[in-house]
Amino acid sequence: MSSTIDKSAIETILQHIAQAHADKDAAKLAALYKPATRLFDLAPPLSRTGMNVGDISAWFDTWEGPINLEYQDVNTELSGNLAITTALLHMSGKKKEGEEVDLWFRATTCLKQYNGRWLIIHEHTSVPFYMDGSERAALDLQPE
Amino acid sequence: MSSTIDKSAIETILQHIAQAHADKDAAKLAALYKPATRLFDLAPPLSRTGMNVGDISAWFDTWEGPINLEYQDVNTELSGNLAITTALLHMSGKKKEGEEVDLWFRATTCLKQYNGRWLIIHEHTSVPFYMDGSERAALDLQPE
Repeated sequence: MSSTIDKSAIETILQHIAQAHADKDAAKLAALYKPATRLFDLAPPLSRTGMNVGDISAWFDTWEGPINLEYQDVNTELSGNLAITTALLHMSGKKKEGEEVDLWFRATTCLKQYNGRWLIIHEHTSVPFYMDGSERAALDLQPE
Repeated sequence: MSSTIDKSAIETILQHIAQAHADKDAAKLAALYKPATRLFDLAPPLSRTGMNVGDISAWFDTWEGPINLEYQDVNTELSGNLAITTALLHMSGKKKEGEEVDLWFRATTCLKQYNGRWLIIHEHTSVPFYMDGSERAALDLQPE
């Protein structure tokens, strides 16, 4: 029962991530993360520490309208005060300079419960790369 | 105390991953993973199910000598029968066609304890990509 409630709480956080992108609300997004959490992001560097509201805002501002984020194949594991969620994500929308974004990527999200509240303690988002010598990021993949 | 023992058990698994690469022992590597586990790998597709000994062997065979894998900045979170490890990894060695590999990437490894034994239930390895329109994978990064 407790596990069902916790899984539901964690799925709600994923919905909040998507909603914060739709609303381009950087403060709302950052509040879902533990401060100084370790992030392995789509963009360099290899590793970042903490969500910076200013940086998120600046990135949100490069989009024309809402950023659509859809979760697919969500899989959650829970034990004690720790949770792991894996999912495939579809990001779509229009950048201000005109580019139409239609990108599938993978996300691993680790959460920890503090006084009954789940916070993201680690997030790893990425696309694979083609090992054909081209050094191209695989931005054109879809779920199989 | 139990937590210290478990953290040590998990660090031992990371050492086994590195050793299996050094020895190019595909069966030893695959045995560290739960069958049918979800993998977000450096290479496409977006998501794979399970470690295939034949596929790993074929990849190991593309290397001239040992594959060196070093872990840096390892961070482990543990609760109940679930563990999450994040790390930066340095892979180096020589491919049979002559290329010298010297690559830093990130790894998120999720483990679960079954009857006292920790198995990898999810692994996410990646490099970021340059969001400069070049669509290049960031294969030249180093820890900051």
